[in-house]
Amino acid sequence: MTPHQPWDVLSGARVFDLAQPMRRGMPQSPNHPPYRMLLERRHGDLIRSDGGSAANEVVITGGHVGTHIDALAHVSQDGRLHDGTDAATAQSAAGFSRLGIEEFTPYVGRAVLLDVARLHGVPVLPPAHEITAAELEATLEETRTDLRRGEAALIGTGWSRHWEDPPTFTGDRHGVPGPGAEAGEWLAARGLRLVGGETLAFEHIPAGRGHAVLPVHRRLLVEAGVHIVETMRLAALAEAGVTEFLLVLAPLPLVGATGSPVRPLAVVTPDDPA
Amino acid sequence: MTPHQPWDVLSGARVFDLAQPMRRGMPQSPNHPPYRMLLERRHGDLIRSDGGSAANEVVITGGHVGTHIDALAHVSQDGRLHDGTDAATAQSAAGFSRLGIEEFTPYVGRAVLLDVARLHGVPVLPPAHEITAAELEATLEETRTDLRRGEAALIGTGWSRHWEDPPTFTGDRHGVPGPGAEAGEWLAARGLRLVGGETLAFEHIPAGRGHAVLPVHRRLLVEAGVHIVETMRLAALAEAGVTEFLLVLAPLPLVGATGSPVRPLAVVTPDDPA
Amino acid sequence: MTPHQPWDVLSGARVFDLAQPMRRGMPQSPNHPPYRMLLERRHGDLIRSDGGSAANEVVITGGHVGTHIDALAHVSQDGRLHDGTDAATAQSAAGFSRLGIEEFTPYVGRAVLLDVARLHGVPVLPPAHEITAAELEATLEETRTDLRRGEAALIGTGWSRHWEDPPTFTGDRHGVPGPGAEAGEWLAARGLRLVGGETLAFEHIPAGRGHAVLPVHRRLLVEAGVHIVETMRLAALAEAGVTEFLLVLAPLPLVGATGSPVRPLAVVTPDDPA
Amino acid sequence: MTPHQPWDVLSGARVFDLAQPMRRGMPQSPNHPPYRMLLERRHGDLIRSDGGSAANEVVITGGHVGTHIDALAHVSQDGRLHDGTDAATAQSAAGFSRLGIEEFTPYVGRAVLLDVARLHGVPVLPPAHEITAAELEATLEETRTDLRRGEAALIGTGWSRHWEDPPTFTGDRHGVPGPGAEAGEWLAARGLRLVGGETLAFEHIPAGRGHAVLPVHRRLLVEAGVHIVETMRLAALAEAGVTEFLLVLAPLPLVGATGSPVRPLAVVTPDDPA
Repeated sequence: MTPHQPWDVLSGARVFDLAQPMRRGMPQSPNHPPYRMLLERRHGDLIRSDGGSAANEVVITGGHVGTHIDALAHVSQDGRLHDGTDAATAQSAAGFSRLGIEEFTPYVGRAVLLDVARLHGVPVLPPAHEITAAELEATLEETRTDLRRGEAALIGTGWSRHWEDPPTFTGDRHGVPGPGAEAGEWLAARGLRLVGGETLAFEHIPAGRGHAVLPVHRRLLVEAGVHIVETMRLAALAEAGVTEFLLVLAPLPLVGATGSPVRPLAVVTPDDPA
Repeated sequence: MTPHQPWDVLSGARVFDLAQPMRRGMPQSPNHPPYRMLLERRHGDLIRSDGGSAANEVVITGGHVGTHIDALAHVSQDGRLHDGTDAATAQSAAGFSRLGIEEFTPYVGRAVLLDVARLHGVPVLPPAHEITAAELEATLEETRTDLRRGEAALIGTGWSRHWEDPPTFTGDRHGVPGPGAEAGEWLAARGLRLVGGETLAFEHIPAGRGHAVLPVHRRLLVEAGVHIVETMRLAALAEAGVTEFLLVLAPLPLVGATGSPVRPLAVVTPDDPA
Repeated sequence: MTPHQPWDVLSGARVFDLAQPMRRGMPQSPNHPPYRMLLERRHGDLIRSDGGSAANEVVITGGHVGTHIDALAHVSQDGRLHDGTDAATAQSAAGFSRLGIEEFTPYVGRAVLLDVARLHGVPVLPPAHEITAAELEATLEETRTDLRRGEAALIGTGWSRHWEDPPTFTGDRHGVPGPGAEAGEWLAARGLRLVGGETLAFEHIPAGRGHAVLPVHRRLLVEAGVHIVETMRLAALAEAGVTEFLLVLAPLPLVGATGSPVRPLAVVTPDDPA
Repeated sequence: MTPHQPWDVLSGARVFDLAQPMRRGMPQSPNHPPYRMLLERRHGDLIRSDGGSAANEVVITGGHVGTHIDALAHVSQDGRLHDGTDAATAQSAAGFSRLGIEEFTPYVGRAVLLDVARLHGVPVLPPAHEITAAELEATLEETRTDLRRGEAALIGTGWSRHWEDPPTFTGDRHGVPGPGAEAGEWLAARGLRLVGGETLAFEHIPAGRGHAVLPVHRRLLVEAGVHIVETMRLAALAEAGVTEFLLVLAPLPLVGATGSPVRPLAVVTPDDPA
């Protein structure tokens, strides 16, 4: 065996769980079916001859619930999906015949945290703060990091700290911080494979406006073919000052679906600049 | 930056997707709610003012459907869960208050493939083949690999090659290959964190017998506290001759659930013995 | 044929639909799984060789959603269901082995409307109005009607007029009118087969109190074995001044369930006192 | 009170329950989401301060499951629904904007049982028996009954006696008895409001053919606007020799759905010819 066995390299690494726990009543977009997990069989319902018993459950959920990733099929513009596919012919009772979440190859690679909250010296950005391209640039400069084509960029807003406070988290009244159209453009130009953030929608939501239009989704999913991960839990990663890390992100292969809940992991080795 | 950045180590690695695709009608145990994904909104249902449109879905599934991992709460013996927890008091409308799948820390570490099919020189073991401790030992000797405490062992039966043939895969008539009670004992004694296999249940199922008793589940989940991953897709990994690899396995954090679908990845670097 | 054929008697009858329409987002108790109906197949997804196509849907609902009836198994007191059944042994993964909604024989018989709103000369009772036994008595006197053993009594509050205004209908802030414990006692003493009302819960809910205790459910379901129908639409019936009518109430035979949505009908013949 | 109060007329009537009990695993068409009812809260999960406890459930079902009625929106021909509505524009995430099951006015009226099994002197017609117009005519003649415009006709095949034997009931191998295209034509010409039968599909299904085309659905639902009720339980009614009765059929008002489970009742007074 060589010294470069990946499990040796990663031994001693710290693994950050970037997913929010999934439970009934957690914040989610009202546009998607609400999450519900309930036990079907409980222990004691049916006891095997040897005294054993098995419990199980049913899970009802949307694909865009909890920490999740958007498939390219999620959004269309003027009737077209990314790469010009006619949305109407791609969708059916079986879901999408193209660009469903099963087409996303699990990501195992470098990712960068663009921590805009840290840039402003606050734990959480104010609601309705619009993230600009200049702010994203500034986070890179400050941390001496770079974005590379085909890789991942996560934007830190601190918003995941509001998770236990659903009205604030969903931001119906006061809005939600996120990248505006200009920052979306900047991200699209970077040739990334995926981007992610801590809010329900990877967008700037002004106070009281709701999700009337979603320009960043359009720019990234439809035009640039960049996947979007939402409702991530980035607070601990940000707190540790991590800026560069190994991201492993493997959504469920829900054939034909427009998205999937996912449990992304950030793997940070002691050698890391952090 | 140092040469040991994990993304550098893994650059050039081959990533094997160890999950079966999830679609309506796939083989699954009749004991669990059937998987169903269907679109709710389709493109064109609701077009935003800028010509954009978003599609979404509902997913209905059991926690033990597709490639999935069993939580320790899944099985009880004589009314007790692992570590003696009274099953009756731990279960409620909110699921399990202890030993639910959210308590499983995502696994990022070394795993070994004990390929029993390869040991016998066949692509797939015959239905109802009972895997013995001696066979598991023999796979380690043949590949000069070892199992280590706290790590993962996957058993290769080739059974995932039957995925497209549901009657064969479920094995109602002819049975399913898997570890018998003695092999379960051998595995339990290894101090592993998790084990996995290609069949619906990580058990030896004799022809025509069904899942009357599940001794390996009892030994591993209840007594030893070892998690079990089922319905994995190991054929490509086995075909590549991989015996040792980095396994990343991060189930959805379904709070209180007895299991979760999961998308495990095997990361194999060019340096690997394979 | 005789002159008494029921279809002849009923010809010319007016049929009042006593059910609220079921749609996503309708008012319902937060204690129950939310209603959701979505199309699975749409026309055009799969076209048969002759040009035909069939659409269908999935419905996800609680048993106590929309206009619905409570089975006796719905409520227990000190661990006992009606008639002393041990609740713990009657419930399992298959639902209830006793007193599930399938045990309710469909009702085809006389019913009386006790219109308390009319008694007070208002279209809708104020939120948090507690209905008393004296008020129920007074409605009978005023309309010269009587209650008979084994029959049905519906209480008019006018509350169904708030259906399109979910916050008012659910009454989280201001409460909901309904029978208090004393009126429940009065109803229980009448030997009725079933009672019904227009609100989510057939109870008096004081402002800001929520459903902390449900004394009328206890008295009727557990002790007296009287079924309760909730969320009925009685406004048109009340407006027509009907006090006595033929009620047909046939819930879905959901074996083992604690309740079922239902579409009750009031059949009013021209001969009726109304 | 007059002697014609409907509850007096119906007092002493026998009420036949024409619905099959709904439970997991019951026979249903594989084209529709499978029925599943499971408890969410059980007694004891949450005990109120006064010792009370409430249990509830979630129900997951298709609209064409168990005894159910087809809405006119269920079937289209060449892209058109009944009355020429463009199917594509009527369907959306909210279901159908026209011809959904909520548009069906509950039926309270005369119905006739055309008992073809009795005509042949058998309890159950053989699988794959095609019912002809002549047979339907003959049942009317034999029982001296007539069909009237706007009313209901149910066809007796005896098939509901196979309910407990799912493979026979679904008829995948040997087919299912039912009206052929010619009988469908004859029914359509009668100007009925609804028709019903005991099988999964109100069609003649030849052995081994499945539901390749559904000519009777087309003729009745799309062209004639006649509703179809399926999977009815008619055996007891047939056994009692009833030919004419009061039918009450009130599906759930599932707004926008293509069908609904229903609990139809046949009310037979002692005066009836039976």
